[in-house]
Amino acid sequence: MAVWDARFSKKIDKKMESFNASLPFDRKLFEQDIKTSITHVNYLASINVLTKQEKSQLIHGLNSIKQKGLKGKIKTEHEDIHSLLEALLKDEIGALAGKLHTARSRNDLVATDFRLFISEKNHAIKKQLTRLLANFLEVAKANQKVILPGFTHLQGAQPITFSFYCLSYFFMFLRDHERLTDNQKRILLSPLGSGALAGINYPHPRKPSALELGFKGILPNAMDAVSSRDFLVEFQANLAIIMMHLSKFAEDMIIYSNKQFDFIEMDERYATGSSIMPNKKNPDALELIRGKTGRVYGNLMALLTTLKALPMAYNKDLQEDKEGSFDSIETVENCLELAGSCLKTITINAKKMHLATEKGFLQATDIADYLVNKGLPFREAHGVSGKIVKHLVKNEKIYSDLSLEDFKNFSSLFESDVFQCLDLNTLIENKKSHGSTSFREVKKQIHLAEKTMKRILAD
Amino acid sequence: MAVWDARFSKKIDKKMESFNASLPFDRKLFEQDIKTSITHVNYLASINVLTKQEKSQLIHGLNSIKQKGLKGKIKTEHEDIHSLLEALLKDEIGALAGKLHTARSRNDLVATDFRLFISEKNHAIKKQLTRLLANFLEVAKANQKVILPGFTHLQGAQPITFSFYCLSYFFMFLRDHERLTDNQKRILLSPLGSGALAGINYPHPRKPSALELGFKGILPNAMDAVSSRDFLVEFQANLAIIMMHLSKFAEDMIIYSNKQFDFIEMDERYATGSSIMPNKKNPDALELIRGKTGRVYGNLMALLTTLKALPMAYNKDLQEDKEGSFDSIETVENCLELAGSCLKTITINAKKMHLATEKGFLQATDIADYLVNKGLPFREAHGVSGKIVKHLVKNEKIYSDLSLEDFKNFSSLFESDVFQCLDLNTLIENKKSHGSTSFREVKKQIHLAEKTMKRILAD
Amino acid sequence: MAVWDARFSKKIDKKMESFNASLPFDRKLFEQDIKTSITHVNYLASINVLTKQEKSQLIHGLNSIKQKGLKGKIKTEHEDIHSLLEALLKDEIGALAGKLHTARSRNDLVATDFRLFISEKNHAIKKQLTRLLANFLEVAKANQKVILPGFTHLQGAQPITFSFYCLSYFFMFLRDHERLTDNQKRILLSPLGSGALAGINYPHPRKPSALELGFKGILPNAMDAVSSRDFLVEFQANLAIIMMHLSKFAEDMIIYSNKQFDFIEMDERYATGSSIMPNKKNPDALELIRGKTGRVYGNLMALLTTLKALPMAYNKDLQEDKEGSFDSIETVENCLELAGSCLKTITINAKKMHLATEKGFLQATDIADYLVNKGLPFREAHGVSGKIVKHLVKNEKIYSDLSLEDFKNFSSLFESDVFQCLDLNTLIENKKSHGSTSFREVKKQIHLAEKTMKRILAD
Amino acid sequence: MAVWDARFSKKIDKKMESFNASLPFDRKLFEQDIKTSITHVNYLASINVLTKQEKSQLIHGLNSIKQKGLKGKIKTEHEDIHSLLEALLKDEIGALAGKLHTARSRNDLVATDFRLFISEKNHAIKKQLTRLLANFLEVAKANQKVILPGFTHLQGAQPITFSFYCLSYFFMFLRDHERLTDNQKRILLSPLGSGALAGINYPHPRKPSALELGFKGILPNAMDAVSSRDFLVEFQANLAIIMMHLSKFAEDMIIYSNKQFDFIEMDERYATGSSIMPNKKNPDALELIRGKTGRVYGNLMALLTTLKALPMAYNKDLQEDKEGSFDSIETVENCLELAGSCLKTITINAKKMHLATEKGFLQATDIADYLVNKGLPFREAHGVSGKIVKHLVKNEKIYSDLSLEDFKNFSSLFESDVFQCLDLNTLIENKKSHGSTSFREVKKQIHLAEKTMKRILAD
Repeated sequence: MAVWDARFSKKIDKKMESFNASLPFDRKLFEQDIKTSITHVNYLASINVLTKQEKSQLIHGLNSIKQKGLKGKIKTEHEDIHSLLEALLKDEIGALAGKLHTARSRNDLVATDFRLFISEKNHAIKKQLTRLLANFLEVAKANQKVILPGFTHLQGAQPITFSFYCLSYFFMFLRDHERLTDNQKRILLSPLGSGALAGINYPHPRKPSALELGFKGILPNAMDAVSSRDFLVEFQANLAIIMMHLSKFAEDMIIYSNKQFDFIEMDERYATGSSIMPNKKNPDALELIRGKTGRVYGNLMALLTTLKALPMAYNKDLQEDKEGSFDSIETVENCLELAGSCLKTITINAKKMHLATEKGFLQATDIADYLVNKGLPFREAHGVSGKIVKHLVKNEKIYSDLSLEDFKNFSSLFESDVFQCLDLNTLIENKKSHGSTSFREVKKQIHLAEKTMKRILAD
Repeated sequence: MAVWDARFSKKIDKKMESFNASLPFDRKLFEQDIKTSITHVNYLASINVLTKQEKSQLIHGLNSIKQKGLKGKIKTEHEDIHSLLEALLKDEIGALAGKLHTARSRNDLVATDFRLFISEKNHAIKKQLTRLLANFLEVAKANQKVILPGFTHLQGAQPITFSFYCLSYFFMFLRDHERLTDNQKRILLSPLGSGALAGINYPHPRKPSALELGFKGILPNAMDAVSSRDFLVEFQANLAIIMMHLSKFAEDMIIYSNKQFDFIEMDERYATGSSIMPNKKNPDALELIRGKTGRVYGNLMALLTTLKALPMAYNKDLQEDKEGSFDSIETVENCLELAGSCLKTITINAKKMHLATEKGFLQATDIADYLVNKGLPFREAHGVSGKIVKHLVKNEKIYSDLSLEDFKNFSSLFESDVFQCLDLNTLIENKKSHGSTSFREVKKQIHLAEKTMKRILAD
Repeated sequence: MAVWDARFSKKIDKKMESFNASLPFDRKLFEQDIKTSITHVNYLASINVLTKQEKSQLIHGLNSIKQKGLKGKIKTEHEDIHSLLEALLKDEIGALAGKLHTARSRNDLVATDFRLFISEKNHAIKKQLTRLLANFLEVAKANQKVILPGFTHLQGAQPITFSFYCLSYFFMFLRDHERLTDNQKRILLSPLGSGALAGINYPHPRKPSALELGFKGILPNAMDAVSSRDFLVEFQANLAIIMMHLSKFAEDMIIYSNKQFDFIEMDERYATGSSIMPNKKNPDALELIRGKTGRVYGNLMALLTTLKALPMAYNKDLQEDKEGSFDSIETVENCLELAGSCLKTITINAKKMHLATEKGFLQATDIADYLVNKGLPFREAHGVSGKIVKHLVKNEKIYSDLSLEDFKNFSSLFESDVFQCLDLNTLIENKKSHGSTSFREVKKQIHLAEKTMKRILAD
Repeated sequence: MAVWDARFSKKIDKKMESFNASLPFDRKLFEQDIKTSITHVNYLASINVLTKQEKSQLIHGLNSIKQKGLKGKIKTEHEDIHSLLEALLKDEIGALAGKLHTARSRNDLVATDFRLFISEKNHAIKKQLTRLLANFLEVAKANQKVILPGFTHLQGAQPITFSFYCLSYFFMFLRDHERLTDNQKRILLSPLGSGALAGINYPHPRKPSALELGFKGILPNAMDAVSSRDFLVEFQANLAIIMMHLSKFAEDMIIYSNKQFDFIEMDERYATGSSIMPNKKNPDALELIRGKTGRVYGNLMALLTTLKALPMAYNKDLQEDKEGSFDSIETVENCLELAGSCLKTITINAKKMHLATEKGFLQATDIADYLVNKGLPFREAHGVSGKIVKHLVKNEKIYSDLSLEDFKNFSSLFESDVFQCLDLNTLIENKKSHGSTSFREVKKQIHLAEKTMKRILAD
């Protein structure tokens, strides 16, 4: 029996009933629906639609339902969480339950519930991000002397420290954190009191109810309030960006844990083996993170598609806003947590990283700069350094195989101090610009990161 | 306890275990996994790895598990359906169960199971499409005399019949049916016997096992066989196209059931009311179909994203190929069924459709053609007809308000036979090209559709 | 001749050269590249890499190139805008041009240029949004008495005013404006001085250069600075949301301008006709806006796909960040402008809107509320009102056809004051909640909108 | 001056005119538009709407325009290629040009032109695919003895040959080729003669015109014919799958050309250097291929979005079907060609591949199988082999460091023949199943591939 039966002669088709029902997923809004209902009861009492006694009966009933929880209460006869809650309330306190629906519609109700839910999840994901930031910072602090090849185009480019590498992710995920903070401003605007689309037939200032629920303000136009979901697209886009960043990190770690690299080793708690190949130790956690990026992108695309060209105001299509959001939220929470777990338990093979840096001719840029300092124009210096690399590759040698004489064959400007250019620590130290990989600049970045963490944790 | 424990010292992290587990969704492959296993047992017996007795014990055990079903058997200790099945088999027949895993890997196993599953669903969706085709054909047959405005740009263009309208969808969904048939050629290729990626250490002709399972052939390269999912992208793209077509139909019906149109009325079994507005009768079924298009597009995007730049061969990311597929399959099956239910139960307001056609100046093209027949160049004739429309709009009149004199004011070529151009039936009849909306051509399309239905049903 | 030739023996393949070249599109960054270069020259002079004279020669050369513009300067031998600029500078001032590349890389250069470009476009789109907001406000102010049916599920729900309708879009697009403002915080962070990925071999405080260029701060980690594009995903997501909102508005207007509705009429300047049907007046501008939503969604998905699982740090894949962005920017700018043009030039058929409201039983909710006020529980009142609607539909009547007697047949609670419920103005007025469609509340929304406009324009 | 001016009083807005114009991109349909027009002229003559002389004048005029080409003919006054062509024809042969538009609409015209265009491009891409298949086959034939680690989870799994690796891509791209062949069946159906949506006022059998143009048949319903674009979604999905496969190959090659792997070396003609780092040799061609996957995915999503919930029949939104398609076609053509160029010019470091296989414990599976052959149950054998790997990793040894004694410490079943398991050639040879990596099975796959190539080339 639906709440709108009176106008209809036929009962809803069984298949249609289950197709239409949102209870299997909007039951997640159970607590929010009770919270919003209590606030609504307070409002109704404030305008004397409810007596003091009715108010306390209703609130008592709602709280009692909340305590009992949803276990086993879900039956197919209820279309959605709101109908279920009304039925439970009737069981609890009798006919008075019917008054709860005065001056509200499922349109403003579900929009309010859902915004409260997303706001909580937004907060929870920020907390997970904070934990991941702490993990990156911790690993950064512990690995300031570890040198590895910095890649561009997945080709060795210049030496960097593992600390510097971790900090690049720190500042990346920090922006994701900021985006969620900005998002909150548009999530925490209350639609409650907007009715079906045009407002309600009672005076309702709306702001007091909004503040009671933890909103920061109200949406100023009723029709926009009940039908807009841009706060959710923004949220899902923010989740997609987080996954994009996580997929990048996962990709790096998967490559670095390949035998040819052997830069890191996954902890066994986050790897799996093979049912057939005893030699395998697979970075499943990271692969799943990378793979699940698709799911979160897909949910964003799904929501954007659903909202495309939807006429004013509420349309049933909007019911599709939930499942994808729930899925993306759960996915991002899990992925953030597991990325952190993987990161803080990996073994870092500093020796292998160092060796790879030596073998990659990563000193070539500094050799060019050396020549510039000796007065050669940059383009020519670049050319000389390039020719040395070509020579080394051809003869399967590395820089330390070269004598000063060898160097001088490429340019008479080379002197014995060229060998300083070959020392990786010196190369790192030479990066003197703000934000560089030099030990000193990395310390400054760590300091900034620590300050930022304090600020975030204080929020 | 995972099947690959021996190489590892630490137990898998609890959170990781549930993140990694595919059992919550790959349990859908239960029957396929048993089927594939029985075929594998037959193969193992054929190369004498199993004795006749072992073979019959194993097959008996597998059949017994199948009959008992999965109810309550699922525990978190099992990573996936394959591990669960092995555990159940051990409970059923003891240590012999272990031999099942000889000469196969989870990589070729899951690829085989999943292809069988998708093939069945492909078939099921074709059946649903066939039912919808029958619905469109039935409604087309019943409404050959019903005239409505054919729209382009959602502006009245030329008169058409509702039968013609339904047939346009018939031929659209028929192509979707054909695409699924073509798809099947690439689904029904067996990976079984490909091992983890390189083949197995036993002679295995593979084709007999493939045919036993209902495949049409085998994938000729083991590594491609275990890791390729293009058959699935193709399938999901085909589902996306079906939803695109359904969303178009839903949009039409939603607009046509709006009061201003009132062309059709939804049956109450597929509409819903409002908890607050007693006047409402909402086309929820159609809105949900339209809205769920997003979900199916999103799942396609998700899969494409997951597969992007994935290195050879099997990667754990591929585990993400299932949930989205299951969701799209269920969605498309439901939407096809409900679209058919809506279609065959709508009330068609032929009177309203006819009236709207009269009021839309839809005879304008034929008036232009009339003048062309009288010798006016087309562009000029178009111009005269346009001017008449402008005049009618400005004076809030329709064609039947005009006298021959009035017509002659626009062009001296008009004669009394112009009034034939104003009769909608004549206009319809005038469309003489193959495939047009004329009553005769529509009959021919119905005939073609009937022949096609017979062919499809005979398949 | 590429800038990195010395290390290579073979010349680049011709096909590869054009595949690789970004000049056909990154030429759009011409002005930004000059601007960034001038700032870099100032920096180089500040650390005495350049003499005062060299500095002024270089700046003079750069300014001179800017004034001459790019016309006809583009040749296929230049890989990108940076190479072209260097070549032009060499033509202009000779060998000194080579010094420009000291202490910078194309990686930090292009990231800086592109952020400057996006920042400008972000600003330009905010301006377009502001204009559109002004259009909505203007139309809202002019149509405060115009009543139309407010739809949910595209079924008449409750009466609203056209002013209220316009304000719903005002507040929607206002949030889009805010999002762009928040976005700017993450766009205007400078990568300049980060080198290829690890920093540069010169002391570089970076902040002065950043401020000189109009940035608000710097990106604190060099590797993150050169390779991160999350500011751009955020920007493209914001553009996608704008298009989603525009597509909603376009859909409404397309439906409202259909003959069956006739609520509005497009101005001829933004409609087109048909080459074959003289009666047509098609809302092409709106259809294109709706259709182009696909393009902007697609560009977002393209960028997200490209960035998925991209290893640290710069990869050539990132070159793909530009064309889609350029396309989305141009699309959104055009669509915003044309949506505004359409809006401010439409003819509003107040009479037709009013009539449609009367015919849609939109008083049903208020009749239910009337009964609630007389003491009936809400659910029962809803039931009575629903039965009246059913009766009217069946007998093809509207409310004003009913006598008090007729009303009393449905409930004895009806009295003569029920007829006040039937007056649309009264119904509108009855919506007393904050943000409702009542004349008074709409005035307040207009007031808020005006205040907001002043604030935005003052920014 | 538009072709539909007569009905309108105002001239189109300038901004709107350029927003609306499709000529900047549909000019690509120039040749198809002429071809279709000539066929239409033949039809008009066949029903005596044109005299023989008019027919030859028109055809002569159209051919003359074709020969002159479009150079410099494009002016903003023409809305689309059809208007332009009409204007050019008028210049060429005078007023008779106007007759060309008898009995056709831009709706069926553009649908016909575009299907012809897509059909040609479908064919061209199949040719590019054929070339790539030939490249893979050639490299497969040349590298039958080259052994490398086969990866799963990017962890060494089992030894494979490079030939086997190449063949996996051969059969993957072969399916892409088949999909395009299937697609053609739905592309080559003619809409010509369907008019604006309802057919035309002349008898038109349509099939003769269709065959004249190279179509295989006609679309049986006029409204479906002019408005359906599912053939294009299917085509774009097929292109997306090709890019997905190319991105996989690009990813492999990028990783394999990293110094730590050094399995392959890019030819200098398809790599680029760095303006700052002389040591760099970047696989730009492959990175661009990988990156451009986003663009082709995005165009597919764009088209799906545009088509979502579009009402019957032609809507201006459909104009958006072209640019994204053109972009994807050009992208896929370029990427296929460059992937082939990269593949056939890479240097294969067989020595490095072999060494990596030895170091990866890839014999572990065969050691387990060895024990199974000696009678140990598979799971136990897997366990023993896993323990050996663990031992080797811990002590930084490889298999060849172990004595028989050492093996016996893990299981008394080991005998001297275990050392055969350690030989990579033996391991390869042991894979006896159909489609495996064994030298014999690879030869059979090459044979199958060669037969397939012959068949394809004969088509």
